[in-house]
Amino acid sequence: MLNLHAPTDPDWLAKIDGHWEELLIDHAHCEKKAAGVAMNLIFAYVQDEELCRALSEIVREELEHFNMVLDVLRSRGMKFRRLTPSSYGHRLGELVRKQEPQRAIDRMLVAGLIEARSCERFGLLGEYLRERDPELATFFSGLFESEARHHSTYVRFAKHFADEAAVHARLKELAEQEAAILAQGDPVPRMHS
Amino acid sequence: MLNLHAPTDPDWLAKIDGHWEELLIDHAHCEKKAAGVAMNLIFAYVQDEELCRALSEIVREELEHFNMVLDVLRSRGMKFRRLTPSSYGHRLGELVRKQEPQRAIDRMLVAGLIEARSCERFGLLGEYLRERDPELATFFSGLFESEARHHSTYVRFAKHFADEAAVHARLKELAEQEAAILAQGDPVPRMHS
Repeated sequence: MLNLHAPTDPDWLAKIDGHWEELLIDHAHCEKKAAGVAMNLIFAYVQDEELCRALSEIVREELEHFNMVLDVLRSRGMKFRRLTPSSYGHRLGELVRKQEPQRAIDRMLVAGLIEARSCERFGLLGEYLRERDPELATFFSGLFESEARHHSTYVRFAKHFADEAAVHARLKELAEQEAAILAQGDPVPRMHS
Repeated sequence: MLNLHAPTDPDWLAKIDGHWEELLIDHAHCEKKAAGVAMNLIFAYVQDEELCRALSEIVREELEHFNMVLDVLRSRGMKFRRLTPSSYGHRLGELVRKQEPQRAIDRMLVAGLIEARSCERFGLLGEYLRERDPELATFFSGLFESEARHHSTYVRFAKHFADEAAVHARLKELAEQEAAILAQGDPVPRMHS
């Protein structure tokens, strides 16, 4: 369903454990960035009214999540602040082809893969924290469904720019590269390290 | 309440009358741009949590309005499309000072003035169309309150970056320049021509 090439390495949980403040701050930035990505797509493909309506809803939901993470931080006495991101988003962005309509397809699919990976990791976090921190576990688990839905939305709208076979072939390629980027690891504990 | 230096010239209504399709398409783009401006401000001033929460709400409302204008267009058999904007937004943008914190103050106040002018014009349109097109009149009148509220929000948050006297002095200057830009007119019938 999520079209990921490889599951998250179990080491990831060990690496982020104990860095919950940093992870939550990074998570807030990720939600903000997800809203920004959807907004940029509205501006880029404004002639596609159906897409714009769907993207408006994604922006709304991502900003709602952003505010929810700010609430979690506040309730735990943690201060939201700027934070060096993982290299994941930037490296995925480099895979986007420059020419339209390939560019549109890739922007949709990269956004969709980030949603898929977030979804998978929220599931892992919900499971891992179930006993350790039930409140945080419930919070992450609650985000699973919307990220899965956003993934499907992006893949569906990529098909506004190419036929189904072309979209799925490209999705497979990008999913392999996404998994390769994560396999190389990142020195900082992040949602997508 | 709206801090505008001069009311809209009554000629504006005569100039846009009969160009309702173009005006509505321009209006949809304006709502989208208003959402984009608020989103950009979240990214620029992310360390100000209270501001980010308020801006998230503005993004949500502007995108809701964007979708509402798309609905109006659709119900009238009009097709949303790209459209050359008026020069208003670009010219106001040129007034923003480059150095922080002046830049933050100006970005807030320029956004606030655009909201104020939109608010004033929605009021004029509601009045002008009351007999001519009651449905459209109701639509525009319904947007008045939120634009007035957004204006107040932006002016209030400008005070996170300077004291009240400095903000009001700069608001007065920018309001004069906003009125001067409109007084020069624009060859195209637009929400801010």
